[in-house]
Amino acid sequence: MANFNIDHDRENRNGFPEVVYGAEKSVGDLTKIMEHFVAKNKNVLVTKLQKKKIRALLKEYPKAEVDLEAGILILNRLKKIKGEPEVAIISAGTSDIRVVNEAYHTLKFMGVRSKTIKDVGVAGIHRLLSRVAELKEFKVLIVVAGFEGALPTAVGGLLPQPIIAVPASVGYGVSRGGKVALNSMLASCANGIVVVNIDNGYGAAMAALRILNLSVK
Amino acid sequence: MANFNIDHDRENRNGFPEVVYGAEKSVGDLTKIMEHFVAKNKNVLVTKLQKKKIRALLKEYPKAEVDLEAGILILNRLKKIKGEPEVAIISAGTSDIRVVNEAYHTLKFMGVRSKTIKDVGVAGIHRLLSRVAELKEFKVLIVVAGFEGALPTAVGGLLPQPIIAVPASVGYGVSRGGKVALNSMLASCANGIVVVNIDNGYGAAMAALRILNLSVK
Amino acid sequence: MANFNIDHDRENRNGFPEVVYGAEKSVGDLTKIMEHFVAKNKNVLVTKLQKKKIRALLKEYPKAEVDLEAGILILNRLKKIKGEPEVAIISAGTSDIRVVNEAYHTLKFMGVRSKTIKDVGVAGIHRLLSRVAELKEFKVLIVVAGFEGALPTAVGGLLPQPIIAVPASVGYGVSRGGKVALNSMLASCANGIVVVNIDNGYGAAMAALRILNLSVK
Amino acid sequence: MANFNIDHDRENRNGFPEVVYGAEKSVGDLTKIMEHFVAKNKNVLVTKLQKKKIRALLKEYPKAEVDLEAGILILNRLKKIKGEPEVAIISAGTSDIRVVNEAYHTLKFMGVRSKTIKDVGVAGIHRLLSRVAELKEFKVLIVVAGFEGALPTAVGGLLPQPIIAVPASVGYGVSRGGKVALNSMLASCANGIVVVNIDNGYGAAMAALRILNLSVK
Amino acid sequence: MANFNIDHDRENRNGFPEVVYGAEKSVGDLTKIMEHFVAKNKNVLVTKLQKKKIRALLKEYPKAEVDLEAGILILNRLKKIKGEPEVAIISAGTSDIRVVNEAYHTLKFMGVRSKTIKDVGVAGIHRLLSRVAELKEFKVLIVVAGFEGALPTAVGGLLPQPIIAVPASVGYGVSRGGKVALNSMLASCANGIVVVNIDNGYGAAMAALRILNLSVK
Amino acid sequence: MANFNIDHDRENRNGFPEVVYGAEKSVGDLTKIMEHFVAKNKNVLVTKLQKKKIRALLKEYPKAEVDLEAGILILNRLKKIKGEPEVAIISAGTSDIRVVNEAYHTLKFMGVRSKTIKDVGVAGIHRLLSRVAELKEFKVLIVVAGFEGALPTAVGGLLPQPIIAVPASVGYGVSRGGKVALNSMLASCANGIVVVNIDNGYGAAMAALRILNLSVK
Amino acid sequence: MANFNIDHDRENRNGFPEVVYGAEKSVGDLTKIMEHFVAKNKNVLVTKLQKKKIRALLKEYPKAEVDLEAGILILNRLKKIKGEPEVAIISAGTSDIRVVNEAYHTLKFMGVRSKTIKDVGVAGIHRLLSRVAELKEFKVLIVVAGFEGALPTAVGGLLPQPIIAVPASVGYGVSRGGKVALNSMLASCANGIVVVNIDNGYGAAMAALRILNLSVK
Amino acid sequence: MANFNIDHDRENRNGFPEVVYGAEKSVGDLTKIMEHFVAKNKNVLVTKLQKKKIRALLKEYPKAEVDLEAGILILNRLKKIKGEPEVAIISAGTSDIRVVNEAYHTLKFMGVRSKTIKDVGVAGIHRLLSRVAELKEFKVLIVVAGFEGALPTAVGGLLPQPIIAVPASVGYGVSRGGKVALNSMLASCANGIVVVNIDNGYGAAMAALRILNLSVK
Repeated sequence: MANFNIDHDRENRNGFPEVVYGAEKSVGDLTKIMEHFVAKNKNVLVTKLQKKKIRALLKEYPKAEVDLEAGILILNRLKKIKGEPEVAIISAGTSDIRVVNEAYHTLKFMGVRSKTIKDVGVAGIHRLLSRVAELKEFKVLIVVAGFEGALPTAVGGLLPQPIIAVPASVGYGVSRGGKVALNSMLASCANGIVVVNIDNGYGAAMAALRILNLSVK
Repeated sequence: MANFNIDHDRENRNGFPEVVYGAEKSVGDLTKIMEHFVAKNKNVLVTKLQKKKIRALLKEYPKAEVDLEAGILILNRLKKIKGEPEVAIISAGTSDIRVVNEAYHTLKFMGVRSKTIKDVGVAGIHRLLSRVAELKEFKVLIVVAGFEGALPTAVGGLLPQPIIAVPASVGYGVSRGGKVALNSMLASCANGIVVVNIDNGYGAAMAALRILNLSVK
Repeated sequence: MANFNIDHDRENRNGFPEVVYGAEKSVGDLTKIMEHFVAKNKNVLVTKLQKKKIRALLKEYPKAEVDLEAGILILNRLKKIKGEPEVAIISAGTSDIRVVNEAYHTLKFMGVRSKTIKDVGVAGIHRLLSRVAELKEFKVLIVVAGFEGALPTAVGGLLPQPIIAVPASVGYGVSRGGKVALNSMLASCANGIVVVNIDNGYGAAMAALRILNLSVK
Repeated sequence: MANFNIDHDRENRNGFPEVVYGAEKSVGDLTKIMEHFVAKNKNVLVTKLQKKKIRALLKEYPKAEVDLEAGILILNRLKKIKGEPEVAIISAGTSDIRVVNEAYHTLKFMGVRSKTIKDVGVAGIHRLLSRVAELKEFKVLIVVAGFEGALPTAVGGLLPQPIIAVPASVGYGVSRGGKVALNSMLASCANGIVVVNIDNGYGAAMAALRILNLSVK
Repeated sequence: MANFNIDHDRENRNGFPEVVYGAEKSVGDLTKIMEHFVAKNKNVLVTKLQKKKIRALLKEYPKAEVDLEAGILILNRLKKIKGEPEVAIISAGTSDIRVVNEAYHTLKFMGVRSKTIKDVGVAGIHRLLSRVAELKEFKVLIVVAGFEGALPTAVGGLLPQPIIAVPASVGYGVSRGGKVALNSMLASCANGIVVVNIDNGYGAAMAALRILNLSVK
Repeated sequence: MANFNIDHDRENRNGFPEVVYGAEKSVGDLTKIMEHFVAKNKNVLVTKLQKKKIRALLKEYPKAEVDLEAGILILNRLKKIKGEPEVAIISAGTSDIRVVNEAYHTLKFMGVRSKTIKDVGVAGIHRLLSRVAELKEFKVLIVVAGFEGALPTAVGGLLPQPIIAVPASVGYGVSRGGKVALNSMLASCANGIVVVNIDNGYGAAMAALRILNLSVK
Repeated sequence: MANFNIDHDRENRNGFPEVVYGAEKSVGDLTKIMEHFVAKNKNVLVTKLQKKKIRALLKEYPKAEVDLEAGILILNRLKKIKGEPEVAIISAGTSDIRVVNEAYHTLKFMGVRSKTIKDVGVAGIHRLLSRVAELKEFKVLIVVAGFEGALPTAVGGLLPQPIIAVPASVGYGVSRGGKVALNSMLASCANGIVVVNIDNGYGAAMAALRILNLSVK
Repeated sequence: MANFNIDHDRENRNGFPEVVYGAEKSVGDLTKIMEHFVAKNKNVLVTKLQKKKIRALLKEYPKAEVDLEAGILILNRLKKIKGEPEVAIISAGTSDIRVVNEAYHTLKFMGVRSKTIKDVGVAGIHRLLSRVAELKEFKVLIVVAGFEGALPTAVGGLLPQPIIAVPASVGYGVSRGGKVALNSMLASCANGIVVVNIDNGYGAAMAALRILNLSVK
């Protein structure tokens, strides 16, 4: 008895290829699911994979592109992305890199070019201020932050684009697990900031895609 | 000593007029703030006002447009909005009406036409299914839900646009206060749903505005 | 001094054989408890066993039937189950499989036939809609879901049977641990959904058994 | 623009008449919704009504049957219920009466006879023990409890029927709001207890109805 | 029997006059406590008073200085404060005014001059940046913020003084009650920010006093 | 149909008269319950009564002894208590008085003499230290505290008797509702401190009674 | 520099020997602390030790008495305990054994004899009822329970002695970590139950000791 | 592409060298960041390092000073600190040592001499009382406590200096993770206690530095 029934129709319905959530699936089940995609000659993106499972899957699919820290595995990607980056993925530093990269790879998989800007935390606000002009050129801003999650508020007060805030499970004590950053972003005084689940770089990328598709029309 | 220092420059900076959060301000302070706007010949939108304070402010500003349930007061609105609605504000029923209307009035204040669709809860999924074609015509979908907050997940699986989910503090027991709906939306299996604070119809409208501005470019 | 005192009378009192909760018991204590059952020539079901403890118990009882992922060990099962399945165990996909299988094995142990249906998440609602006719044939529906836990709400709006919702500890960020799915199910807008503890596939099966016993009378 | 779109088809779909949740609806909206039902010559059950709103609605519908404490209003009920009660609604005492009565009235509205048994708290366990024989005669047991919520556990160990546990928001300190009773019921050591939302007497009645419908077949 | 036993020795012990916490004391008990102070010819500061109780106490002590919003009553204050303000009390706007004023009046009661600066929220960061030079002149900075509580982080990155962050119970949804602002301040990326309880303007003032006493030595 | 079934046998079973919890019962139900006691010529203690309900009950029972702040009503008390107080009820000040008095009145009702000592908070530790000799004379110590709840820890380090800690819902911000005091007492470094529910002066008195009964034997 | 300063005076002050909390101390620090006791020819009880640290300490002190599951190490115990057990330690089954044994060993260390009774969960209430007569003989009852923590409530309704409830971190889903059992015990409808921290068998034993010392006088 | 952009200007701006938060950074990223500091001939302090990462970094920088328990690595420290200690770091015992040492090393890195005093828990209050005279000599007191976190309250009642309370994640049951100690400190009855994040010895040291800089002026 098959353990899954893939929604291959989704791409027709709302324009997005299905993506596989890997955290609680066994390597065995993941391999079977990937075979279905491969058999249909489709690209595969698997997210939230533990390092151990990535290494096991690499043995089956040695050509897969992976990011061990971000828990990402991509198979058979075809598109070349050209032009200027449309999305900026902004963060305060290297601690958030897992989440930044999950968004980055998802956008690449979806055919969207993005740029990561990792050095603009609120505790040194001049670093953000000096890049406002550059940031104005992007269509969508994804802002990743852990600890107190103040960065999207500062960005939102300075820039007019759609801003997708991603809380990161970075920090200790009250901020362990990312709930403080999440709530901080939801409670932001800045106008029209929207938020996704903690560590959900993938979801932020998909939200950006929904917005970019609109601007294409 | 003045109790405030209005950010009149914001409109230049990111394109949005400043809006006044009314919940914790006294009628006296609100009147002084509104005078500043009036003196500069600017429109005023005040949100989260208690009914008692709306009634007091109406005595000062009898021409103000108000929505007692939604806690909204608008002064001196000038723009006429034409054309087809660009935003659909979707909800499950009449219990969410406060939040739906906060989004609706904010969009109107910002010059954006929207349509409210209030009868499409997940417990009777055929009502949503029968309106998919109609919903495809909007640029942005704002989805309001209380209780278990499942509606944005269903909408997200059926439609490709940007979807802004707004949890409403509607329900009792575990769902009192709206945290369950909030978390449910953040944890949604549907792709690329973004979320704002509980009852934040205003914020959802501003997020829609950020997106619509993009599509104008 | 014996560490336990088995309630062998329970079967007379309310019709259910006693089942052993294995999570916090040592292999030594578990073996002693199992010996009591064996000595009385009774069947044994042990739940919530860590893999390591299952492997240790298998050395003692090589004929035991086990499910490593679901944490189940069954000894000496005698009944053959015939006829059509009476219970459907519905879930969104392969991530919930641990919990689905705990319910499945418990029902089998109790002499009840069930069918698992694993491909019907709310984010692709057509998959559920296409199986409504099939689902109408079951007496009881057990619905397992992690993340936002919306599936029982959709099922409850479409089908008239008793529906037992089981939240699964599947997801990350706000949904890690299963509390969001639990609260979502408790707050469901659908009528008459009942809920058991997070990951409690066993409890859902026992609740189904209480209901099925009733329909037999 | 109408604020609602009643799901009159629900009764065909899963056999239950729609019920109106009254807590966050205005008297104006409630009146409009009730008119729709009246116009179609249908019965109406409204739940979770504040006393003030019940009194206002009574002016419009002086023949309505109401329970001020339980927040219930019933219009135009036709069925006479005969025979022995099928459901027992068990509680520890008079503090839970709001919730007990919500279940009782809902069952009556649905055409099911029930009996309330209000004197059997765990702190005086002999009261429950002395009624076990009587309780065995009911098809379904609804058990309401506040404070520590231990009653369903005791009932579940003594009786074999389907048991629907309803946590009541009765108590102070840690038990204020009913969360302790809820979690206590979810964590129960007794087999196959199922649970509904805090104070959800209505939901327990609907779950009982789903079960009774099954035993009718 | 007297309901209290005032710690008149505290001033000797650690240099601070005792202050009366008024929230849960009756007007009768408060009057008796104040009489003790008056009898010893001492100043009295009462905090967290409900408006109703302030009005009742004013009848007894018509010369008392009160702040209805801040819940403060001061009796018999003698000191004149000269010189430049030593403490700046910074906030984002008029919603936090209760808390700002509690700190302000407490400092005045203790003989410390302070200045309130109420217009420098992070969502319009230029307002803060334009006042950095002015803020450098104060010995201690008290920073009050509700909602997401980001202001102390921004201040902490720009200025070297001791910074005492005070979360305010200002906001709705996730930020209602002030927990988000509190956690945000505790989790701040800025160095050496210290925090007091939600709405504790009094405590922030006392902490400033401990620091100022040190710099006097 | 009677709404209650009093456990008159309890006194035989474990030596305690039944006490009526008043918070969620209506005046009507309370009057009926009290009549049962009166008819059997028994004393009545009702706890957790709202002021409004006490005033209504006083009209029926003008001879009842009441404490409006503590929410207590006592009917027909007969025993005279002689001898030295056996229990000390210790607290930090007048804010906790509701809870202190609930314990005091319950003990008096049960025939136990107690003394209240209200001026010994940890922030002025010398006040506690100066009374250690006096406190050694009591058999049981009940210690009430709100805010951070540190008092039982200090008492527990100084004195060898049974210590029953009662958290009081006194404080604001993080300490509103009494959870901080509760957890603080549960986590105490002092040996053998036991704890009852927040505001449960009644429960502390009953626990003291269980202990005193033991020492009588 | 020594990392500790043992409170050797405690025994004089309140009659209890100091006990060492081992969870967060290193083996090195523990060895130094134990040497202090040994040098003074005193007994040592160390609690909450990880298995790994017990094994390391056993190499230093091969004569120590240990309980690996309960995390206990005892050195140099001298007293022989005679007579009938004074304390009963009651639990529902073998899952709670860690906590039961921590209480048991602590009492033994303090010179108090106790008996463990492990088979009396509420889900099979007859097991408890059949032992009421036996339980009446003990001076103090310690009741350990995980999951829903209902056992102390049942015991409290049947027996008049001091009852110390100990929540155990036994269970999964909502009951993982023991908070449900804790709150359930605090909210108990039974009179005069007192509670200690989750898993605090040691604290329950010390509380029993405080009570037994009293009855000795 | 570099993963970081160090804020080398911070020292000019507010007088503090930048410190590296190590918990979520990889060894690779940490090495690159450290190289930047080394290249500029600057000191480096890295905090919250897992032991494994400290050992890996020691291979690269064998001269680094490390504290494995406290998770600290310091490179190239130059200053010699003279004179009397200005800061006392007070704690209850050896369990808090990680946090005490993080504060100690940070102060040393910043050129401030401090003294640790580890034996003064509230459960044995005489130990604290006997050192009050000694403690009066320090300019700033850092007070670390786990469990119920009562120590800062006691210190605050006895001493007039600035007091920075640091909750430690020491304890089990309700106190696991340090939230109880944190809330206890925030809710303290003692005047003017300020608090930092759980386990944030580093932040307490930086706050002390802000205060000491002030007293230098």
